[in-house]
Amino acid sequence: MQPYQLSLTEAAAAIRSRELSPVELTDSVLERVDAVEGALNAFACVTPDLARKAAADAEQRIVEGAYRGPLDGLPLGVKDLLETAGVPTTSSSQVRASFVPDTDAEMVARLLSAGMVMIGKTHTHEFAYGATTPTTRNPWDVDRVPGGSSGGSGAAVAAGECLVGLGSDTGGSIRIPAAVCGTVGLKPTYGRISRRGVASLSWSLDHVGPLTRDVVDCAHVLAATAGFDRADPASVDVPVPDYVADLAAAADRGVRGLRVGVPSNFYFEHVQPEVEASVRAAIAVLEGLGATLVEVTIPYADQIKAVSWGMLGPEAASYHQKAMRETPELYTAEVRVALEAGELVLATDYINATRVRTLMQQAWRQMYEGIDVLVAPSVPVVAPRADQEAITWADGFSERPTDCLTRLSGPANITGLPALSVPVAPVDGLPVGMQIIGRPFAEGTVLGVGAALETATDWIGALAPL
Amino acid sequence: MQPYQLSLTEAAAAIRSRELSPVELTDSVLERVDAVEGALNAFACVTPDLARKAAADAEQRIVEGAYRGPLDGLPLGVKDLLETAGVPTTSSSQVRASFVPDTDAEMVARLLSAGMVMIGKTHTHEFAYGATTPTTRNPWDVDRVPGGSSGGSGAAVAAGECLVGLGSDTGGSIRIPAAVCGTVGLKPTYGRISRRGVASLSWSLDHVGPLTRDVVDCAHVLAATAGFDRADPASVDVPVPDYVADLAAAADRGVRGLRVGVPSNFYFEHVQPEVEASVRAAIAVLEGLGATLVEVTIPYADQIKAVSWGMLGPEAASYHQKAMRETPELYTAEVRVALEAGELVLATDYINATRVRTLMQQAWRQMYEGIDVLVAPSVPVVAPRADQEAITWADGFSERPTDCLTRLSGPANITGLPALSVPVAPVDGLPVGMQIIGRPFAEGTVLGVGAALETATDWIGALAPL
Repeated sequence: MQPYQLSLTEAAAAIRSRELSPVELTDSVLERVDAVEGALNAFACVTPDLARKAAADAEQRIVEGAYRGPLDGLPLGVKDLLETAGVPTTSSSQVRASFVPDTDAEMVARLLSAGMVMIGKTHTHEFAYGATTPTTRNPWDVDRVPGGSSGGSGAAVAAGECLVGLGSDTGGSIRIPAAVCGTVGLKPTYGRISRRGVASLSWSLDHVGPLTRDVVDCAHVLAATAGFDRADPASVDVPVPDYVADLAAAADRGVRGLRVGVPSNFYFEHVQPEVEASVRAAIAVLEGLGATLVEVTIPYADQIKAVSWGMLGPEAASYHQKAMRETPELYTAEVRVALEAGELVLATDYINATRVRTLMQQAWRQMYEGIDVLVAPSVPVVAPRADQEAITWADGFSERPTDCLTRLSGPANITGLPALSVPVAPVDGLPVGMQIIGRPFAEGTVLGVGAALETATDWIGALAPL
Repeated sequence: MQPYQLSLTEAAAAIRSRELSPVELTDSVLERVDAVEGALNAFACVTPDLARKAAADAEQRIVEGAYRGPLDGLPLGVKDLLETAGVPTTSSSQVRASFVPDTDAEMVARLLSAGMVMIGKTHTHEFAYGATTPTTRNPWDVDRVPGGSSGGSGAAVAAGECLVGLGSDTGGSIRIPAAVCGTVGLKPTYGRISRRGVASLSWSLDHVGPLTRDVVDCAHVLAATAGFDRADPASVDVPVPDYVADLAAAADRGVRGLRVGVPSNFYFEHVQPEVEASVRAAIAVLEGLGATLVEVTIPYADQIKAVSWGMLGPEAASYHQKAMRETPELYTAEVRVALEAGELVLATDYINATRVRTLMQQAWRQMYEGIDVLVAPSVPVVAPRADQEAITWADGFSERPTDCLTRLSGPANITGLPALSVPVAPVDGLPVGMQIIGRPFAEGTVLGVGAALETATDWIGALAPL
């Protein structure tokens, strides 16, 4: 077994006991990057010199007894939407080809000060406005997309090119690549992790969070990054529990007595039958572990798409308005058209979308009076092929890959609820993800459900056989 | 002197000492209503039977020793935008001609439970969307408008038809009628008083507050109505000080040492010279009382109108969208055209207005680092004539009366800061108002400045000589 194959938790244990040095680990990961990047192109830029320097610093700290804790010396991939001091931050767009920030995004700063070693910047669908990440391929089948928009982080974590990848999630952009690349991915509660220094797609829906190999890894990254930041207007000053200790303490109880909501509408409509079967098998595992299944009806289901696009389109158009006036030719045609469409939305439509969102949030709160978590497929399909232009269903309904991939993840952005995507049984060797959606700031509960599945099954934690 | 001529504080003292009964006071006010309504039409509906019943109840309470405090038994006029249980609430529009709510607006409920006696519902410019209140005349000159949109409350308080009037203020709708009718009017901090049960004009800018004869009256009403209410999404859970006691305690100190900002731009541009002179005379009085005058520059002054209308237009259009589809003919032409214009605003323009507002709020916060309050004219002119279609300035600039009347009051709505309008020296027998604008939740400070002026001058507290 090579060091790059270790999960965060395994690697941390080896480093702490000095069986493994951060420099060895970083070298192993950089060799892995060299070996697979030709096929994947997960990184917008790799920073080996910075990484080796950071790893050497970590090694020296540890030798000197100044170990910083379970993230110290561990390789990190940062989505290229998050600013990194002195390192280009292009948002995978020609528009920002020469942008080199002076400071780190808050989430990056917190992880670097916890000792993590940045390997490079991972590709995003241009400005996070799409769910296929066309620059990059899926490590489980390089003819397929890695999902997106955090497709680079999904591919890199699944291929062993880093132990943790950072992502952002406006309509599913963490959970989609996590699902189709077979990693764990967490979109926390709106306001839980600061977005300072992250290019915005739609500030009312934007979240940041980690992609990891397994659930406890995810708890570690959340613990290091959650918390109030006045510099992010959406940040909320809610105490940060000890996610890792709570996860360990709750392991014995598992999901016994937990009320798990299973949607009777929306989430299983236009879903690939094998994907549905895999998710329902995972739900059956939860029931076998003592959870109580509760059938629920998703409120305002027919409004979800209108609310998502009614908010996202114009907010993105506003954010990009100046650059679209000055250098429209630097955008890819796909994103330029989407931004132009956003400029045509009326203010009343935008306002009505925000008003329906409020009603949806109230209705979801009511729904949660009867359940503790909701479970559902993360994505309706396995990873689409890179050359696929549409996904067509048996009843004739046809949709663009981005529309299909984001269809089931949007509600957690509208409601702001924490949503964890975990791998469930693969279909034809391709990963499938299940979302566990919790109450506001109940990240601990969704991680607990993910951990129970992880313990009971062998779906979570596998590297792509590349 | 008739009972209707008493201020709230005077009447409360007389009631408490049993020199005056609530029934006598209410009868006196209702007689006054009968005498002047023909000329003013301040009320959309008068409720004498309910009023006499409430006054008799108050009288009995007081006889039984269950006096509820300084508002008990005192006559109240409620803007017809605020819902009143069992009493028509038309927003002075045919659209709501037959609307009779089941419950009281939160602000009304709090005052009724403090013992106030509702005399009736006062006219608003239709749905608060205008600043002239064409139904109603100004008691200082019945050929002139009472301002608006809370013009009915302004006229009623100034004419002695009630001791307190309630208003709402989205772009100046409390301060404008207060200024041109010669009453005190307070727009509190955004979120200070609940708007539950008040028809919305633009929820990002909407406030409710009182119009009163003098400053201490205003403190009494604020004390009874301020405070958190979960039912208003803008409500803020900030402790409510004892405004009345604080005002009394600060009376000796007055404005000594207070830094009073005097704007060098925006607020004195296109202002009637006599109005400017009157406001500057009041500022000189404050300086004479020991305040330090500090010249300040208003930031983003050229963006104020765009931000106000960019937010107000589409929010109003969204609120009225359904009724405008169904019964457009029931709106007055003026308001219908304004609502139609709001439908044409693009989402990006609305969003950009909200983004500039955030920048303005930050810049104002910086400005307040050097001052405690800002003073400025409430309105650029004395009350316009009812038949006036435009106000034309010496340099040829011409504006609609509503645009002129709201021009100087909008910034306190955008910033959300508390703003008190108090009478200063009249011009040709017509009232003039000065705004005192404070820091967030510093209502106590602006009331203190108003009280210092009140003590030092004889401008505040006069009834119209009708």
